[in-house]
Amino acid sequence: MSSAATESEINHVIDRVKELGYQAHVTRGTEKTIVAAVGSSGNREQLAALEAAPGVENVVVIAHPFKLVSMQVKQKRTVVNVGGVPIGGEACVLMAGPCSVESREQLMTVAHAIAAAGATMLRGGAYKPRTSPYEFQGLGTEALKLLREASEATGLPVVTEVMSTEDVDLVAEYADMLQVGARNMQNFSLLRRLAKCERPILLKRAPSATVKDWLLAAEYLLAGGNSQVVLCERGIRSYDPDMRNTFDLAAIALAKQLSHLPVVADPSHGTGRRDLVPIMARAAVAVGADGVIVEVHPCPEKALSDGPQSLTLPEFEKMVQLLGQPLRRHLRQELKAATA
Amino acid sequence: MSSAATESEINHVIDRVKELGYQAHVTRGTEKTIVAAVGSSGNREQLAALEAAPGVENVVVIAHPFKLVSMQVKQKRTVVNVGGVPIGGEACVLMAGPCSVESREQLMTVAHAIAAAGATMLRGGAYKPRTSPYEFQGLGTEALKLLREASEATGLPVVTEVMSTEDVDLVAEYADMLQVGARNMQNFSLLRRLAKCERPILLKRAPSATVKDWLLAAEYLLAGGNSQVVLCERGIRSYDPDMRNTFDLAAIALAKQLSHLPVVADPSHGTGRRDLVPIMARAAVAVGADGVIVEVHPCPEKALSDGPQSLTLPEFEKMVQLLGQPLRRHLRQELKAATA
Amino acid sequence: MSSAATESEINHVIDRVKELGYQAHVTRGTEKTIVAAVGSSGNREQLAALEAAPGVENVVVIAHPFKLVSMQVKQKRTVVNVGGVPIGGEACVLMAGPCSVESREQLMTVAHAIAAAGATMLRGGAYKPRTSPYEFQGLGTEALKLLREASEATGLPVVTEVMSTEDVDLVAEYADMLQVGARNMQNFSLLRRLAKCERPILLKRAPSATVKDWLLAAEYLLAGGNSQVVLCERGIRSYDPDMRNTFDLAAIALAKQLSHLPVVADPSHGTGRRDLVPIMARAAVAVGADGVIVEVHPCPEKALSDGPQSLTLPEFEKMVQLLGQPLRRHLRQELKAATA
Amino acid sequence: MSSAATESEINHVIDRVKELGYQAHVTRGTEKTIVAAVGSSGNREQLAALEAAPGVENVVVIAHPFKLVSMQVKQKRTVVNVGGVPIGGEACVLMAGPCSVESREQLMTVAHAIAAAGATMLRGGAYKPRTSPYEFQGLGTEALKLLREASEATGLPVVTEVMSTEDVDLVAEYADMLQVGARNMQNFSLLRRLAKCERPILLKRAPSATVKDWLLAAEYLLAGGNSQVVLCERGIRSYDPDMRNTFDLAAIALAKQLSHLPVVADPSHGTGRRDLVPIMARAAVAVGADGVIVEVHPCPEKALSDGPQSLTLPEFEKMVQLLGQPLRRHLRQELKAATA
Repeated sequence: MSSAATESEINHVIDRVKELGYQAHVTRGTEKTIVAAVGSSGNREQLAALEAAPGVENVVVIAHPFKLVSMQVKQKRTVVNVGGVPIGGEACVLMAGPCSVESREQLMTVAHAIAAAGATMLRGGAYKPRTSPYEFQGLGTEALKLLREASEATGLPVVTEVMSTEDVDLVAEYADMLQVGARNMQNFSLLRRLAKCERPILLKRAPSATVKDWLLAAEYLLAGGNSQVVLCERGIRSYDPDMRNTFDLAAIALAKQLSHLPVVADPSHGTGRRDLVPIMARAAVAVGADGVIVEVHPCPEKALSDGPQSLTLPEFEKMVQLLGQPLRRHLRQELKAATA
Repeated sequence: MSSAATESEINHVIDRVKELGYQAHVTRGTEKTIVAAVGSSGNREQLAALEAAPGVENVVVIAHPFKLVSMQVKQKRTVVNVGGVPIGGEACVLMAGPCSVESREQLMTVAHAIAAAGATMLRGGAYKPRTSPYEFQGLGTEALKLLREASEATGLPVVTEVMSTEDVDLVAEYADMLQVGARNMQNFSLLRRLAKCERPILLKRAPSATVKDWLLAAEYLLAGGNSQVVLCERGIRSYDPDMRNTFDLAAIALAKQLSHLPVVADPSHGTGRRDLVPIMARAAVAVGADGVIVEVHPCPEKALSDGPQSLTLPEFEKMVQLLGQPLRRHLRQELKAATA
Repeated sequence: MSSAATESEINHVIDRVKELGYQAHVTRGTEKTIVAAVGSSGNREQLAALEAAPGVENVVVIAHPFKLVSMQVKQKRTVVNVGGVPIGGEACVLMAGPCSVESREQLMTVAHAIAAAGATMLRGGAYKPRTSPYEFQGLGTEALKLLREASEATGLPVVTEVMSTEDVDLVAEYADMLQVGARNMQNFSLLRRLAKCERPILLKRAPSATVKDWLLAAEYLLAGGNSQVVLCERGIRSYDPDMRNTFDLAAIALAKQLSHLPVVADPSHGTGRRDLVPIMARAAVAVGADGVIVEVHPCPEKALSDGPQSLTLPEFEKMVQLLGQPLRRHLRQELKAATA
Repeated sequence: MSSAATESEINHVIDRVKELGYQAHVTRGTEKTIVAAVGSSGNREQLAALEAAPGVENVVVIAHPFKLVSMQVKQKRTVVNVGGVPIGGEACVLMAGPCSVESREQLMTVAHAIAAAGATMLRGGAYKPRTSPYEFQGLGTEALKLLREASEATGLPVVTEVMSTEDVDLVAEYADMLQVGARNMQNFSLLRRLAKCERPILLKRAPSATVKDWLLAAEYLLAGGNSQVVLCERGIRSYDPDMRNTFDLAAIALAKQLSHLPVVADPSHGTGRRDLVPIMARAAVAVGADGVIVEVHPCPEKALSDGPQSLTLPEFEKMVQLLGQPLRRHLRQELKAATA
């Protein structure tokens, strides 16, 4: 309560707290009075509205807002199986592929090359969310078919973005994992629809979402029935024009502390710069990411989207060496031991 | 080109520029060479990808990315007519109403009170995008019907949010104007669907969108066939915990300079604080906003959403006095004269 | 306390709270225990350190951290007198002048023109904080002498920046008011030195300071003995490359609510765009700013600093008309009445 | 030039470009004309001011603004020697110690423990920049003497912050390396003074500085005569209340690409959370940081500053194991090989 709060204002708050199903514990100081609402009636939001009551200075909500995604609730890390590849297990998953599927030849070239270099999953955009309506919007169904074909040719499971509730069934038919893009992280209609889909979901963090916002978006999926969720950090909006985003690696560590869900890192969008992708991928492994997802193109300067952040095939191979499987395994085991 | 670029790298870029339909003008300095791509072949994005070509230091795209929303293209301000109320014309429109429609009684009380106080449009949420799945999600169709009823009782046209392509027809049946919420500003499926809808659209700015991102989202609507678009600034994400957002009034001035579309201001979300709403509404009028949209609740401390930023009915009346119609008209005329 | 906190961890916190001179009020919920520290022993910071104690989930400090600058403490708005011009009183002060003093001719031209147009104070940089060491650093003492001369010729008091403790006496000899630049807002050595200076201070907000950080910087001045402090909002760092900063007008309203100190607005730095300065100055007046400070140059395209955001002399005159004294007076009186 | 620019406006710009010592290359497109200023007369800033000339749409400056700190200029990585410890060489330096020196006992306990655990340098604050004047401001000279004593007892060189030009000589007498804090990164008076000091400098990045701003602050030191400069990333201001800052590891990679100066990482301030410090330290090593600097306290819950982000002694030991010297050496060698 504010220091000028009257007795009747304090009593009003106490009554309202009780009305909402909480116990009210009152602490009277020399300057201020604190009313603590204790209990678990679930009316958090209604309590917060009390900030509008006369005499109230501010309302501080202490309990965590999420449940099913919480480490405290499940106590055991989730492993999500995507077409035979476990995410969140012993190995750090390596997903790669072009930003957009542009042609059969482009996709097959990339898919075979990344498989040979050690990638464990294939990514590629069929439906592209583009800032401008005049930019390339993706090949749609044709791209989905090509992704399926590339998956079968290489054995790599496929992840691709779905932008619209209408497309969910179609995309689920062709892809092993469905991606929710950063701009759709809080597209709750889409989340509700995907909660009913039987495919695992890769949920990207929105460019100005807090870690808790992100976990609550995942909570929509779990609460709706889909617990096969992998989180993906891809950079947050910031002020330095020399990088597309600020790649927030500490958010990965924090998300893994708060939640049992696996978390992967996207250094391509995280930095927007081809020259920083490999080293930031390595940092992501060191921080405990369960996977890395990067953009690769046979000829980035002709890419229809995200050219400046796509690796060439030789650059991708070099990156895999930098992240070498033994190192990755070593880093993960050591981390597990240290945080046990 | 970087200072270490070779002759063959420079020639490669020149060839590619021509291939994309532009003329290549080359400027050779003592340290660096600049290749200018001149023309209007529309391959902006492909040019940008050249940043990935060897020897290229960076690509600077100078032309504006939008067309139909641009002031340069239309040269005349758009006036959007919403159920008889012109937005973008002489008067500054005053939209008000509860964050969520909670009950018939709540809505009618607010609607009559704001109409009496001078509001010219009614707002109210039927479908609510909520950070957590456990928060109140809106009354849906029931709320739409109540909004229609309130509109008929008061004569105020209604604006309400639509979150999903599936709901567009339903919402359009009951509402005079459809709102795209901040989290859906780049939900391109929804924008494409709304481009085919015959209702005017209120397009909120996403919390980390630049002014150009926002205008490009509007471009999706215009390019798809709906030119009845009003922009709405509602604050951007920032670091000061004492305000919910940073209310970016200069973005209103800039948007009105770049585009012919009307722009309204939402100081409720822009600040998140009831105590700052009236004065920030006034600043919005001074900056040339074509309207103000605020949240009002008969009892904010019991609001099911956005209580801390909702005005009480007496506070709303006081705000209207602060913004008094004569002042608003005076400010607008003067502004028009000064910028003529 | 965290839900897993043991009895002995709780007791440890209680003991520590008492040790720090507070009363400990304990609230036990079904899931969590809350320990409230009540009192005014001033060990806020030590309480905060308890976050590191075992079993503690988080520490929430409720009391405001500032004292002397607080509205609650003084209850009466401060009026700062600068060479006969009251800031914080009836009138809205209009400060103008070049970013840097470049020559006698440049300064005199500007000073006479702005005085004729209605400015009430003269600004001009003698010592310039520049991002690069290769940029113009100001004329130093020579500029101070010119500012004094211009002040005497026009009757306008002078405000100029001081960057270094060593220069305080010298600058105070020539200027009526000393400015602390945004980059020095938390240069505590400088603040401590200025607290002992007898000139009024214009304290700019740092580009990533919260409103409370800013008020605490002012608290250094008041606590050290100088209560003649005027705050100045000049934009915060943000992500949109089309504006130099995000001009945070709501921060002005909030600062005036929390503190009794006058607040002025700097739309030149706030936007970085000459074309937005006049209208944002108007918005600042509408929001209750006690003054506006803008950059003016006889030929902005030849300015040695801040050319793109400097007004020409005719643009300044036009701006004064837009802000016309009667309107400013009217807006202020009305605001006073409305918030009484 | 804007598309509406007249011939005389274009000629005016061409004349001005020549006047400033550049060659003017003109490219005329169907819609727009581009004037390229080519040369190295060093009037970058004056060119930028042309944005204010009539008919100019915008000015894009392409050349890098820094010289002496640039990798392109020196082509060889700098190794800074601090009291016998090389920073930027083979090994990754481990700096640790309390936020503030609080007592002889506290400092000695920490210094001996970190030395035993493998730290190679001691940190500790004597002069503390504090947001509030009522917070602990450091023990000053007494702390400097204790730091010297601890350094002699353990053999670890000492780094400590200097906040004021007046204190430079005194601090340089006791410390092996002088730190410029984040809030003083653009305190140019202090930088100019430190350029004349014979001690190496640890230059922290300001919370809203771009990588280029940071390098330009270092340029002040090098241009003034001190080339013994180590950069330190310590997090940038962002919007997520669950972390004190956003730890920007990509900025380390970018700074090392643009500049030959060593870069160290401060995960204590970078996250503000004790529980994230060790893993973020590891990520910093993976990204190529030349050192890590962390806060350690015998009893963080009683720390006079930064308790929540200080490691206990056992936590520090555990962190050293996680970063184990062999791993660190391995990671660095591999990185060197990969980027050779």
